[in-house]
Amino acid sequence: MALIVQKYGGTSVGSVEKIENVAERLIAARKAGHDVVVAVSAMSGETNRLVEMAHQISDNPDPREYDVLVSTGEQVTIALLGMALKERGCDARSYTGSQVHILTDSAHTKARILDIDEAKIRADLDKGRIVIVAGFQGQDEHGNITTLGRGGSDTTAVALAAALKADECQIYTDVDGVYTTDPRVVSDARRLEKITFEEMLEMASLGSKVLQIRAVEFAGKYNVKLRVLSSFKEGPGTLITYEEENMEQAAISGIAFNRDEAKLTILGVPDQPGVAHSILGAIGDANIEVDMIIQNVAADSTTDFTFTVHRNDYERALDILNKTAKELAAREVVGDNAIVKISLVGVGMRSHAGIASQMFKALADEGINIRMISTSEIKISVVVDEKYLELGVRALHAEFGLEEVGLN
Amino acid sequence: MALIVQKYGGTSVGSVEKIENVAERLIAARKAGHDVVVAVSAMSGETNRLVEMAHQISDNPDPREYDVLVSTGEQVTIALLGMALKERGCDARSYTGSQVHILTDSAHTKARILDIDEAKIRADLDKGRIVIVAGFQGQDEHGNITTLGRGGSDTTAVALAAALKADECQIYTDVDGVYTTDPRVVSDARRLEKITFEEMLEMASLGSKVLQIRAVEFAGKYNVKLRVLSSFKEGPGTLITYEEENMEQAAISGIAFNRDEAKLTILGVPDQPGVAHSILGAIGDANIEVDMIIQNVAADSTTDFTFTVHRNDYERALDILNKTAKELAAREVVGDNAIVKISLVGVGMRSHAGIASQMFKALADEGINIRMISTSEIKISVVVDEKYLELGVRALHAEFGLEEVGLN
Repeated sequence: MALIVQKYGGTSVGSVEKIENVAERLIAARKAGHDVVVAVSAMSGETNRLVEMAHQISDNPDPREYDVLVSTGEQVTIALLGMALKERGCDARSYTGSQVHILTDSAHTKARILDIDEAKIRADLDKGRIVIVAGFQGQDEHGNITTLGRGGSDTTAVALAAALKADECQIYTDVDGVYTTDPRVVSDARRLEKITFEEMLEMASLGSKVLQIRAVEFAGKYNVKLRVLSSFKEGPGTLITYEEENMEQAAISGIAFNRDEAKLTILGVPDQPGVAHSILGAIGDANIEVDMIIQNVAADSTTDFTFTVHRNDYERALDILNKTAKELAAREVVGDNAIVKISLVGVGMRSHAGIASQMFKALADEGINIRMISTSEIKISVVVDEKYLELGVRALHAEFGLEEVGLN
Repeated sequence: MALIVQKYGGTSVGSVEKIENVAERLIAARKAGHDVVVAVSAMSGETNRLVEMAHQISDNPDPREYDVLVSTGEQVTIALLGMALKERGCDARSYTGSQVHILTDSAHTKARILDIDEAKIRADLDKGRIVIVAGFQGQDEHGNITTLGRGGSDTTAVALAAALKADECQIYTDVDGVYTTDPRVVSDARRLEKITFEEMLEMASLGSKVLQIRAVEFAGKYNVKLRVLSSFKEGPGTLITYEEENMEQAAISGIAFNRDEAKLTILGVPDQPGVAHSILGAIGDANIEVDMIIQNVAADSTTDFTFTVHRNDYERALDILNKTAKELAAREVVGDNAIVKISLVGVGMRSHAGIASQMFKALADEGINIRMISTSEIKISVVVDEKYLELGVRALHAEFGLEEVGLN
């Protein structure tokens, strides 16, 4: 008998029938002898419907009222799920974020969870009830409704698991686990049995949108065992946990990639203190997020400075950079929005030398020119021309032996 | 400068544009120097959409979860209205029933308000904010979300007005006041400037569905001045208040009617104690509401017993009554579901003799046969054949001089 927190996302609860399927799954877990707490998202499409109404009223809806509005999405789901369980003779209680005192800061639309009062949930569990909690929402210290931002239901589930010291937090989604890379690009991509928190963070931030980054961070911080599973087919999914002695020590766990990159370079900048800040400060002020940053050692009294941004921000970033270039008397600004980023991720990298050169050679063998390189302890990222994405990912997937083998 | 509570129903907030119109009205009231609190219903159609989903899951959805579900309807409205006010530069705060501690009993789907903590609302008013409260909902002492039943937003508004000792509670609806009778039946029906709580109760329960009965009772009990106005056209509406010395003392204020009646009679019942209970107990057990009840003095050792029910319950009531008739060895059961009830209502009746006979004569002059008669202190109701409804109402409207006069 274990205490399990499950989480079902929007597509898993996207219709009354799907909500009824979730009820069946919960009852199965209950019948297997587990205590069950479940966090759910809004039915898919519902949040968009609400946001559309808000945008009919204002381009920038008041954030406090925005949270009051969109938090109704999850409230509808918890109620329907509660009814479905009761209809099947299973005792259950649904709660909004406010009702179980999911205390957050007051940063409306992107609040962070500070505390959860688990007493009410425990009392229900002790009575044999399944406890249903609205994901994505909480309340601040003044009783205002807050939301955690899109996808925040994962964070709710992990926070509940942490507060209740649950044995496992199971994130049900429309994929059946974390793969070595996107199966749409590499057909023999393999589901990973296990992955470390650190690797998952690198995979998630690089485009494998299986889990919210914040939820993974939270799980790592509070040592919550996290498992990604499919709502629609049976299987063990992928367990996200701490690195263990006996974990398979492949050098590389997976290959992430990001199609939405654009790079900008400012050439011939005077090489003096404060230049990096002059360049990136203006970009940050415009709320443009910067991903990779590279500055080479100065060849003479000037240097070149390159960074990547989301492709949607490319034109705006270019405008800003051109202004900065004038102010700094830089030589030139160049950019390219037909680039992608490919990354090798693996904690095994720490103990395996030569991964980087193996990677670069595999790409060179396919005639792929590398535009930028950036590394961290457990990842190596390269920027290449967009047209090489599939070729590059497939070449690396084969090079590092990530493909599905045997009957696995 | 007054403190005003306004209430807007589902059709008044039925679209984003209509919500924006409500925002304009609220700002106008604020600019006129008033403190403004507003209670709103769900956008029209929204509650039905939610209830439909619930009924896909269960014929009898769990009442606790039902309340969690349908209460989202008003929450959407308060948020959108809050945004619309903020967008227009007007400071405002929206609150769910739980957030302003509208404490109710635990009778889910038909809860009664016990208390409102007005401190939070007052604090906002003191800061010049318009306070928006979700109608129709509250929470019980355990923090469970409750709803007051359909139309309960009127009650929320009145309860807020009572708690805040508001100067007036204004119910905005799709009619511009309370009329002497339904203008669709009598074209020169007149809007009443004033009506007493008692009269309004009789009018409401008899089919003039302008206001929720419970809201009127509540307003009478706490002496809240209630005004019914149109959301869509300007005008003073109708004030519902206590009888005053200087109130116009017409004998009759209005004529109510009800098309949805059916009558059942059990003939030749032994005239002995407990018979009425035997008959109506079985009907009540089947959750059928009984309206008029008439038992004549016994002619011999048996008596006849007649009552009316909602037309939808007619067949069921007939089945039950047939069973009861067998048990009581009654002679016969007869029924008629092609009847209507017409009622004269007026506090003036108390001091005017001869109203009843004047009413009966007016109907007789039109050849209308009266099937049943029932009277209270301020109302006289008759049951007539369905086909006489319009004729009867028009005849009485003219007989008692209720038509619109001059430029009024």
